[in-house]
This record gives sequence, C-alpha cells and structure tokens, in this order.
Amino acid sequence: MYRTHNCGELRLSDVGNNVTLSGWVQRTREMGGMTFVDLRDRYGITQLAFSSDDNDELNQKARKLGREFVIQIKGNVIERSSKNKNIPTGEVEIKVEELNILNAANTPPFTIEEETDGGDELRMKYRYLDLRRKSILNKLHLRNKVALETRKFLDSVDFMDVETPYLIKSTPEGARDFVVPSRMNEGEFYALPQSPQTFKQLLMVSGIDKYYQIVRCFRDEDLRADRQPEFTQIDCEMSFVEQEDILNTFENMVKHLFKSCRNVEFEGDFPRMTYADAMEKYGSDKPDIRFGMEFKNLNEVTQNKGFKIFDEAELVLGIVAEDCAIYTRKQLDALTKWVKRPQVGALGMVYCKYNADGTFKSSVDKFYSQEDLQAWADASGAQPGDLMLVLSGDADKVRSQMNDLRLHMGDELGLRNPNEFKPLWVVDFPLLEWDEDNNRYHAMHHPFTSPKEEDIALLETDPGKVRANAYDLAMNGVELGGGSIRIHDKELQAKMFKHLGFTDEEAQKQFGFLMDAFEFGAPPHGGIAFGLDRLVATMGGSDSIRDYIAFPKNNSGRDIMIDAPATIDEEQLKELGLKIEG
Amino acid sequence: MYRTHNCGELRLSDVGNNVTLSGWVQRTREMGGMTFVDLRDRYGITQLAFSSDDNDELNQKARKLGREFVIQIKGNVIERSSKNKNIPTGEVEIKVEELNILNAANTPPFTIEEETDGGDELRMKYRYLDLRRKSILNKLHLRNKVALETRKFLDSVDFMDVETPYLIKSTPEGARDFVVPSRMNEGEFYALPQSPQTFKQLLMVSGIDKYYQIVRCFRDEDLRADRQPEFTQIDCEMSFVEQEDILNTFENMVKHLFKSCRNVEFEGDFPRMTYADAMEKYGSDKPDIRFGMEFKNLNEVTQNKGFKIFDEAELVLGIVAEDCAIYTRKQLDALTKWVKRPQVGALGMVYCKYNADGTFKSSVDKFYSQEDLQAWADASGAQPGDLMLVLSGDADKVRSQMNDLRLHMGDELGLRNPNEFKPLWVVDFPLLEWDEDNNRYHAMHHPFTSPKEEDIALLETDPGKVRANAYDLAMNGVELGGGSIRIHDKELQAKMFKHLGFTDEEAQKQFGFLMDAFEFGAPPHGGIAFGLDRLVATMGGSDSIRDYIAFPKNNSGRDIMIDAPATIDEEQLKELGLKIEG
Repeated sequence: MYRTHNCGELRLSDVGNNVTLSGWVQRTREMGGMTFVDLRDRYGITQLAFSSDDNDELNQKARKLGREFVIQIKGNVIERSSKNKNIPTGEVEIKVEELNILNAANTPPFTIEEETDGGDELRMKYRYLDLRRKSILNKLHLRNKVALETRKFLDSVDFMDVETPYLIKSTPEGARDFVVPSRMNEGEFYALPQSPQTFKQLLMVSGIDKYYQIVRCFRDEDLRADRQPEFTQIDCEMSFVEQEDILNTFENMVKHLFKSCRNVEFEGDFPRMTYADAMEKYGSDKPDIRFGMEFKNLNEVTQNKGFKIFDEAELVLGIVAEDCAIYTRKQLDALTKWVKRPQVGALGMVYCKYNADGTFKSSVDKFYSQEDLQAWADASGAQPGDLMLVLSGDADKVRSQMNDLRLHMGDELGLRNPNEFKPLWVVDFPLLEWDEDNNRYHAMHHPFTSPKEEDIALLETDPGKVRANAYDLAMNGVELGGGSIRIHDKELQAKMFKHLGFTDEEAQKQFGFLMDAFEFGAPPHGGIAFGLDRLVATMGGSDSIRDYIAFPKNNSGRDIMIDAPATIDEEQLKELGLKIEG
Repeated sequence: MYRTHNCGELRLSDVGNNVTLSGWVQRTREMGGMTFVDLRDRYGITQLAFSSDDNDELNQKARKLGREFVIQIKGNVIERSSKNKNIPTGEVEIKVEELNILNAANTPPFTIEEETDGGDELRMKYRYLDLRRKSILNKLHLRNKVALETRKFLDSVDFMDVETPYLIKSTPEGARDFVVPSRMNEGEFYALPQSPQTFKQLLMVSGIDKYYQIVRCFRDEDLRADRQPEFTQIDCEMSFVEQEDILNTFENMVKHLFKSCRNVEFEGDFPRMTYADAMEKYGSDKPDIRFGMEFKNLNEVTQNKGFKIFDEAELVLGIVAEDCAIYTRKQLDALTKWVKRPQVGALGMVYCKYNADGTFKSSVDKFYSQEDLQAWADASGAQPGDLMLVLSGDADKVRSQMNDLRLHMGDELGLRNPNEFKPLWVVDFPLLEWDEDNNRYHAMHHPFTSPKEEDIALLETDPGKVRANAYDLAMNGVELGGGSIRIHDKELQAKMFKHLGFTDEEAQKQFGFLMDAFEFGAPPHGGIAFGLDRLVATMGGSDSIRDYIAFPKNNSGRDIMIDAPATIDEEQLKELGLKIEG
C-alpha cells in the first residue's frame, strides 16, 4: 500500500500513530542536523522531519531529494515544536523512519509556486506541471464542484441527463463547423455540434419533458483571446413552459450554484431589463450593473451651440464619473488616447469637469458657456466634484464605444469587484439582426427562436422590429447563458427559414427532420444554455476562461503540449478519399 | 401556465381540486355519451372524462382528437367509478371543463405502444417517436440514473471530474481515429479521442490524484451489430495505487450502482479469475459464470483410440449439458449445424449421451467402447442423464468455438437469466499479443500498461509470456470495464514502445509529451474505464446497447434520422484545403 493517509489529513489527534505517506517534494530545508521536507499532494502539505541524531544515512538521503521528486515515507506522527497555523496539518510532523524514492524529477522548467516564472507558452507546453500550482488546481476543483452541483440541482427538479451525438450533420447557418470525413461513407462528412440544439428539441418532441446535458460544443472560428474551439455548455430544455417558467427554474439553479460552491446568497429575485433598455442605458446586452454610470442622452443640451462634431452626430452620450473632477490633464489625455485605440474606435472624447466650487471646465469651453455646461450636468445628473465624459457619432457605434469607456472607468475606479456578483436577466431580444455583409437578416439567437406573438405581424412589414421570446443571463458584464422559447409549429418554422433566406429545398434538406417532427405532436418548449467555462471563471472572480480548462488550446487553436493538430499519414488520407490541395 | 400538475401525480387526495394538465393523447374511448381520453406525459397517464350531458360541444371536440395530439385541459379532479389498479393515477379522473389543442399530430408511422409495428430502420428514422415508448424511455431513465449515481459515488471518494480535450492528435496505434481537418492550420488534422488515456495519465502527473470523467470516445471501425462509432466511457485514474486498490474502489462503485439503480445486492467480494484460468475453463476472457458447463480437457481419454480427428487435434474439449441425454437426433443435428456456421467455424461436433440407465450413446461409437465413454464421463464429471458435447482442433480455435457453443447451450437451457448478475474480475492478462498480420507484438490492453515486475525479464526472452497488471470486470459474458496499472517510468515506457515496433523517433513524435512528463515527477498510477452503454444495457438485462443510446447510428455509421454524414459545400472543402479524390 502506497499510503495510509493523504498529505492533508493528519492532525494532533494522530500523534503517536505510524503512517505511510506518498507525494511530491515541495521544498527541503536544512537546520543544523535536521532536515525538513514539505511533502505535497492534492489534499495538502505535511512536514517530514529527518535528523542525523536518529539516522544519519536517512537524513543524508533526504538532503539529496530534489524538488518535485515523488517519494513514499513511513514514520511516526509527532507534535511540532513550532506550529504553522497557516495550514491544517501545521501542528504535526512525521518523524521519518523509511524513505523510498518512487520517481526522481528533473528541475521543472518553471517554479511550481503561486508566483511562477513561467510565461504563457511555457506553462501551456508543460500544462501538467502548471496544474500542480495550487491556484490552478483550485480552479479545477471549483469547476468539478459547479458541474456536480448543477447535476444535483437539475436532477432534483426532474431534469434527465440525455447524451446527444457528437457526429452530426453540418449546417450552413451560424458559425463554421468542424467537419469529420467519413471513411465508411466516402466523400461525406459528419460535423461536430456547435450545440445540441435540434437534438434537444427532438427530445422535447419525444416527451422527455426536461432535458439537460453538460456537453462539449465546437466552433471553428478565428479565435479571440478568450475563445476556445471546444467549449462546454450546460444545455437545458423544458416542455410546456413559458419564458417565466424557464427564468424561474434557472434563477434557482444559479442561486443554488453560488450558495453551494461560493457561499454567496442573492437577495430577492434577479433584476430584469429589456434588451432595448440595456442598449440605451449601457450600450451592451450584458451590462455590468455592479456600478452605475448609466448613459445619458445629451443631444438636446449639446446640439445647436456651434460645435459641429456634436451637431452632426446622431447621438451625443455622456457618463458621469463620480468625484473625478480632480483628474489631471495627463489622466484625461490618457483616457482620450484609450478611446481612440482601434479596439474602441472613437474619434475623440469630450470631457467636462464639474469642479467642487461649482464651476465647469470642459475641453469645449470655446463652444459652451458655464450655463450650457450646467445644462449638461443637469441632464446627466452630475454633482460638483464629478467628471462628465462625452462621446458622439453614429448611435450604434457611440453606444458600443461608450460601453467600452464605461467598463474601463469602472476598472480604473475599482468599481468592478470580482467577488461581488450582480446577475441581470436581459429579455426581449430582437428576433433578427441585419447582416450588412450578406445583405439579409439572420437570427440573433438561432433560427428556432419564437417571435413574440404580438410581433408576428411585423415579420412582413418591419422584421427588424420583431422581438423574440429570448433571454440572456448577464453577470458582471459577462453573458453567462442565454436561451429562448422555441417555435413548435411547422408553418411558423418554415416562415422563419424563408425570412432567413433559405429556399424551401434548403430548409427541407437541412432541417426537414425537425420540421417533420413538428407534425407528430410537438409540445410548446424552450430552453437555455450556460457556458460552463465562462460561468466557472466568473464564479472564480476571473475574466479569463483559460485557466479553468484543464488542457486549453492557444489562439491558433493548437494544443502545444501534445502538438496538435498535426499531419497524418498518406495512407490515412487515402482511406478517407481525401487529398490535400497544395 | 401550461400545467399545474404532470400526468403522473394526481391521487385520491387531490379530488375536488381544479387542475391544468398538458400532454399527449394516448387513446380515446367512447362509451355512450361519455368520452375518455388517456393523457400521457413522461410521468404517467391521467384519464380525462368528457360528457355530452355536461357539455356536448366539448365532448364532440374530444372525440375528434387524434392519437399523439398535444393538448392542454382544465378541469376538476374526481374519483373514478371503476378504478384502474395498474397505474398510480388510476383512482381519479379529470372532469374536463376546457380543452385546448396545442399541436395537432399526423398519424405516427408506427404505433407508439410497447409492441410496436415499426421495423428497425423506421424506428431509427423517427427515433423521436420511438423514444415515446415507455420501454425505451425507461432505458434512458436508467442511463440517467446510472450516470448520476456514478458521479455521486466517485465524488464521495474524492474523485475529481476533469474534462479532457476532444480535439487531440492522431496516433497510429490501435483502432482507426476519426480525424478533423484544421482550417487554421491547413494540411493538419486533429483526431477525436479513442479514450482520454494519455490525458488522464498527465493528470496523475499533475497530482489530481483521483480523476474521473464520463466521456465520449470515438473509433472509426467497421461496425459490428453492437458497436457504435461514438460511445461513452466512465473513465477513471488513481495515483499511488496498486491493482488491489483499484479493484476494491470499483467493486464498491459497481455495488453502489446495482444497489441504487436496480436494488440488487451482491454477497461478499466479486470472485476473481486469472486470464489463463478463464481461457482454460471458459475459452473467454469474459466468462458468463451464471452457469457452470466448464471446459474439460479430454485429450487423455479420447486420443489413441483410432479416431483420427481427435488423435490429430491439439486439444479435445468437452462440456456437459445436464439432463440433456434426452436430446433427439434432430436437436443434436441442429447443434452440429450451429457449430459449423461460419461465425463459429467448427468442422464438426461429437456428442455422447450418458443415458439414465447408465449406457452411453455417442456419435463415435465405432471408435469408443462403453468403457472408453465411461472414462469421458469421469473426466468431464457427467452424470447419468447428461449430454457431453466435444469439439477438437487447434487449441485457441477450439476454445473459442467451445465458448460459443457453451453460451449457446446456456441460452437454450435458460441458464442465462438477464436479471441475475454475476460479476467476475479477470486478472493477469498477457501484456502482449502476437499480431499475425503485421508479424509483431501489439499491446493487449494499450502501450502504457505495466508488466508485472516479476515478468519484466521475460520481455527479452519470451515476450508473449509476460503478464500485465491488467484486469477486466466481466459480467454475464460481457466485458463491463477494464484497466491496468500504468508504466510511470520513462525508461520502461521507452522499452515498451521498442517492443511494439516503434522507432525512437516515432515514439518521441507520438508520445514524447508523455515520456517527458514522466521525467518531472510521475507518481505510480493506474485506472479503469467502463463502457457506459454496455454497463447500462447489462444492468437493464439487455444484450443490445442501441436502445440505451438516445440517438444511435446504424451499422454503416449513419444517423438516418438527420441523414448524416452528408456532403459539404465546395467552399467548405476549399477553406480546409482539401479535395475529394474521385
């Protein structure tokens, strides 16, 4: 037997017992004739003590142990003379009587400590060593816990875990599919699912009633810093429900997860906001409501005063940074520079300090009197001591830029505490959005989302105005999940495909199985999916999902640890009936 | 709100309440002025009552409901005059006051009853309708329960659920990989994992200590009736363990699953048998020990009596079918015909009846006296009234043929009760098996399996004799799971690859990341994987896994419901830099 206990469980009450432990050498320290070794495993650290007085040979052997050696020891639990209150095992140590080296270790390419000297690429190449760091291990622990608590909660309210296939059919709608050539059906391809959307809807037609799955999904997209080609969803669907039923069910789930995994309790119901309001007040469909700084429309108070940039703008927006009138010229210049970065894309920024003494100082004093600026302050709710920041231009663009600026100010002013959690249901999303590139509408959520009944008539006259029974759960400026009530009527589904530019043949070829299913008794149904990577990262107080994934890929979609993707044998290609084009 | 209750929960205590139900029309019956509708959902069936006396219009509407219509009703719970004791809701019915048709339904292509008239292909095409049948739904329920109880058990003994990647690297070893062309890395491919083997070993190097995952795996093999290109594994790995620790842990898991999901308790420890014994006694590494009929070596008592076929055979094997001396000539001919089928491949079969009166009647009486046959009976343990069946030939082949015959006799004699469960650990598997086609050894389990320490020396002299620290859990003639203690030493791993015919370069290219990892402090470790599809099917008392998979593929690897795989656009191929060869 390799061990009687793990490295995290021995206490004062174990003193006097003979134990066997196994683990990794975290550190060795020599003190006079003594040697102390911190032995580490997933569960904790236990101190081992060797003494030349007791056994010089063994002590010398211990002194030769390198970092990350894997060892087994046998010995007696004794009380420590100088206790370490910082760790649960800190009151005891092991007087070692036998030491076996199970595996030696080369010096790791970076230090396995909280503050590591490993860069991103090096840490990814040796991910198995990076995972030894306590902070990363804790992230995987949290993920494990969140996944299990999700299952327990959903099981308690009758959801069934049903596995859907990973080898499915490619669809032209939405993001790019990864495809899998079929050897048995030469010239044909499977696709990896971007989500099990159609399958979960079919399960509703089957009468499964409440379905869930924690499932891998795949998107062959050009990767931004925080996207992965494969990601994990908590995927759910329910029958005989309206939007209200779904929001209630999953609000309870999120509350359960935060309580059980983070000991965070939310007071009362999660607030709700329409998409239209969210865009108007925050320029985002996932507003961070940990802080205020709502957008104020300043068109009326800024236009027709001779400042051409504002006069020609479709929208002039202001936000108020409280107590920031003290900002220096240098700080304001830096802000202006920040909004002009290509990632934000503003042409400039106007500021107006509402000084503590009641006077105003703006970057456009040439055009605006003190009274004019007082009107800005009134319109935006600024108080003496505050700073107003103003952007202008095309409405959609200026809202997006102001969203960036608002979040940036939130960061600068420390208003985005990662351990404060502010959920928000965003509802009434538009059904369609205009696709400039292809000169047609596409589905904002997906083609199976139902329009609001009262808006169906608008489909013919003003499709962009049609609202969907679609909703997102936002938290801290991040989208945790989203879903919709689905169409369950064949006629309406066919109409939707038509509006999305499908011919009848294309719709039938791609989604005929679903529309056929709607003719055999499909119940009203709807669902939601949460991004598990993102949910866990948010719960962990982090912006980045990568550390919450055991083996992530880099921005080129490569796993640099195993060096994938890679070339394959000619023979393999031949069996698939494929040829690589030069 | 679509419903206040589901269709399985109303009882006598609900009488007098107004309720809203939604579901599917299972059946309508007219009796005089009354109409009764069985309303079905996942939870059960509730009887609805309509009466012309109360509301003729509503009653007429009810009479027009077709099978599988989706409806919502409002009404009052009343006590039934004639109670149905077969269903939990059988004491009440709903006096309906309002009826809304939520979705009409075409006549299903097969009847949605336990005895369906749908053939396999039709049922797969309309799988979403087949899933409405109670027996199939129950199978998915069982799967859901087994998966959740697996997680609960493993969590209770400190296993962590860690997700490993699905887009990995192709390896030439073992079965064929499905590959996924990479668009961002043109000319390169990911592979879908046949198992997360190397990743779980790396997690052990990371110190995760106890890992599990219920994970999809993929094999591009020519499909036999009961194989699927994608299948699900309960995949587990542990550090600082010996074989004994793993067998104990997972024996407890299997006991937990049978207790919690089937209310079956096993007495005492699971029996164990070496691979060598299993092959000798049953000709199988997964013997069905629900019945005896062990193989008896009859070489000594059958050879040198002038019967050339036996004299020239490497092995003469007998089994005893109890109380079968009464078999007719016709039955015996049928058995002979059965063993000669190409799937079994025997050239013939010898029988010997040990009649109740103590005489013998065999198909080789010409060569064997009554005393000779008495010696057969003594050697095989036959009693008066029994039937001896004898096969002969090349040892490996005859064992395999006899295994088939034994299982066939078990079926014929009703000795294989699907609701009796007999687990068996098969241990001490050979490390290597000779691959006739490629004229080299390959790993019986996989290349990471450790040889028994006492057999390592044999690697150089007699590799086929080396036993591995490898084990399978067999049950009822089926392999539920298997695993091994792994190699955790770089040198030994390199040696293994050499024995498997890898050059150093190939080994480094394919598995360098793992061998490198072994140099940074790899703990001793081992693991096991259970086939979830097979486990659940066995627990459900079924031979076939297909009904336990929500959306299975057919024998050509096709999903005939969604019609996948399918051709993809030229543009998609072009983006991937691929061309289909004519």
